[in-house]
Amino acid sequence: MVARAGIVVTGTEVLTGRVVDRNGPWLAEELRRLGVDVGQVVVVGDRPDDLRSALVLLLAHHDLVLTTGGLGPTADDLTAEVVADVQGRPSRLDPDLEGEIAAVVERLSAGKGWRRDPEATAAGVRKQAMVPEGAHVLAPTGTAPGLVVPPAEGTSGPPVVVLPGPPPELQGMWGDVLADPFVQRAIAAREELRQSTMRLWGTPESELAATLRRHDAELDGLEITTCLREGELEVVTRYAPAAAPAYAALEAALRGDFADTLFSPTGETVDELVATALLDRGATIATAESCTAGLLAGRIADRPGSSAYLLGGLVTYANEAKRDLLGVPQDLLDTVGAVSPEVARDMADGARRVVGTDVGVGITGVAGPGGGTPDKPVGLVHLCVTSADHVVAREFRLGGDRAGIRQRSVVVALHLVRELLAR
Amino acid sequence: MVARAGIVVTGTEVLTGRVVDRNGPWLAEELRRLGVDVGQVVVVGDRPDDLRSALVLLLAHHDLVLTTGGLGPTADDLTAEVVADVQGRPSRLDPDLEGEIAAVVERLSAGKGWRRDPEATAAGVRKQAMVPEGAHVLAPTGTAPGLVVPPAEGTSGPPVVVLPGPPPELQGMWGDVLADPFVQRAIAAREELRQSTMRLWGTPESELAATLRRHDAELDGLEITTCLREGELEVVTRYAPAAAPAYAALEAALRGDFADTLFSPTGETVDELVATALLDRGATIATAESCTAGLLAGRIADRPGSSAYLLGGLVTYANEAKRDLLGVPQDLLDTVGAVSPEVARDMADGARRVVGTDVGVGITGVAGPGGGTPDKPVGLVHLCVTSADHVVAREFRLGGDRAGIRQRSVVVALHLVRELLAR
Repeated sequence: MVARAGIVVTGTEVLTGRVVDRNGPWLAEELRRLGVDVGQVVVVGDRPDDLRSALVLLLAHHDLVLTTGGLGPTADDLTAEVVADVQGRPSRLDPDLEGEIAAVVERLSAGKGWRRDPEATAAGVRKQAMVPEGAHVLAPTGTAPGLVVPPAEGTSGPPVVVLPGPPPELQGMWGDVLADPFVQRAIAAREELRQSTMRLWGTPESELAATLRRHDAELDGLEITTCLREGELEVVTRYAPAAAPAYAALEAALRGDFADTLFSPTGETVDELVATALLDRGATIATAESCTAGLLAGRIADRPGSSAYLLGGLVTYANEAKRDLLGVPQDLLDTVGAVSPEVARDMADGARRVVGTDVGVGITGVAGPGGGTPDKPVGLVHLCVTSADHVVAREFRLGGDRAGIRQRSVVVALHLVRELLAR
Repeated sequence: MVARAGIVVTGTEVLTGRVVDRNGPWLAEELRRLGVDVGQVVVVGDRPDDLRSALVLLLAHHDLVLTTGGLGPTADDLTAEVVADVQGRPSRLDPDLEGEIAAVVERLSAGKGWRRDPEATAAGVRKQAMVPEGAHVLAPTGTAPGLVVPPAEGTSGPPVVVLPGPPPELQGMWGDVLADPFVQRAIAAREELRQSTMRLWGTPESELAATLRRHDAELDGLEITTCLREGELEVVTRYAPAAAPAYAALEAALRGDFADTLFSPTGETVDELVATALLDRGATIATAESCTAGLLAGRIADRPGSSAYLLGGLVTYANEAKRDLLGVPQDLLDTVGAVSPEVARDMADGARRVVGTDVGVGITGVAGPGGGTPDKPVGLVHLCVTSADHVVAREFRLGGDRAGIRQRSVVVALHLVRELLAR
């Protein structure tokens, strides 16, 4: 039996979508590595009743429940109190913990020169130092301590791990969570759960589905999810070690049917593959971007160490910039227009020449919502990647809104760089 | 009484964090505009029991429940079936709907030239055409129809609105959802709920908390949430129209205490303010980016119509690029180093000169994780914004990881542009 965990994410800002939750995914991934499956994630605001009913739901269907957020010093930070109540364990002030938190708060505010109301500060510290009877305290990495709260004396049920909201604080506490005996006992039933990913570019989901159906009999014990994003088809499979032969059959089936599009049979992202290929060949790269306006260079630079191959780039949004910075001839811009294969090619070559690199990328397109014409509609993007010896060029008509078209263009560009470097 | 809605988001890829859910936030915002509060959002994978218990939870505490995803043609798409079961309404094949979906599928696959297994396709269509007794069908915008499923005959309870997962499909169906009589009845108790936002830059959360405490007595009826992100402090307040005077008191309090840092009393983002200021002054802008490597230009270009002011930019990751593309003197790079106020200034001026704009931005810093020194640690960023008449320069030591430092640098740069344009 695989142990199961449920997660409560608290925070009105997450509930309303103003902030993207980073803790749920992080915890899910960490738990998966331990062989613990996440069954449900519930997002709640600052209302105690909603938090209470979420806890009751998760406690009924999981071996371990984790909460994130709501541990701050203010009155709307209610998590510890509600968890204590649901687990039937009254809270008491822990004077040692109070002293510890007060010292941290003191140090933090001294460093930043913030004004503080001493009485309110003390009340906040006192609130954060309330510990449910029988709970274990997880030492604060910020100001808020975490808690592991077992069910009430004499009853059985999952423990609740109460974690702070700021991701660095939560992550800093994770080692202590795993070392906690209540937690260890709760997930003792665990069994390794593997997760493997394959990525395809250029295969529609329906073709993959047909292959999966044809091989259905060989794929027992695999939990396969497929997901189309940014034009790539991602196939993520979770399975117990005993199902490894089934996974091998899946991989063989995909390699057989999609030899051309299975660009990552072992899960590397296109970003990783491009970085590795550039490093392996000792090649350098420069970008010339119009509609994406820096997003490609920015994404290449997302990787630590990218300065080994990304020397620079040009954002040439205006036609004059294409002409003056990249040397695209004015008469080319006047005749075929900025969004054309010719200009994409000249941009790629220009980037290579101006920055002095081995590889150049040119992207020019209509991201919309304005600027489309019958000939050159919104979504039309010309891309070109060149080196001294090779040219890879492609025209796309991408769907979606402005952000989607620009994002997809970046992904397409990375794939073209990958193709060029494979030559 | 404000009506409350609960949302179930289905999908293993969302549960494991590989995909960020866009439907929950979109629905929450649409519902908020109608005065409907979202109480809980539950994310579940493809397991029917988890979906069932999530529905039971939400039905118990809300006036309306919405589900997203799990309406596809394959066996792991279970939402309609489970909802029908929970609402106690057996499903029947709707032959008209079956014909309609089959036609759509036919059209879609013809257009893309995909191979298809006719038997599997027919089974998928049949599955998507199963309708719970007494439910309303929402016409498909993709292939999957939506449903509004009332509680079983003779019982009371909230209806469940079953929506497809792809955001454009879901959003395309929203008009029909609002027009549905079951939905209208469920949210009839609604009352307008206003939401107003103020943004501060440079005020710590604790100072704001102190101000809120001091004015506590005047703020009755406001639900205030504060959130620090990317260095900005966002204050979002939800309130019924009757509490408008309390909101005015809040705004006055913030204007009084934080005149210098309250850069957006009416909620505009810094991106909006910069765009408006550039348009108002008819000014153009160019960027020169080292550690951010295009992210600032990319973000300025996020806005439709940005080509009116963003002419271009330079990504000068390597020192040679700073020298050759921007004219930063080699001896300056040799003496004070690339991460210095002098080079940030030269980059800003260089961008302005090379691209030919009114405003130039220079960003140079150590994003890490490598490359830090005792003198110039990871997180040190120098920024400079110049025009013919003004210079705004700032040095920051930003915390966080590589992605965080780069993201924060972009936000800081936007604030400095805002400051320069206000002069």
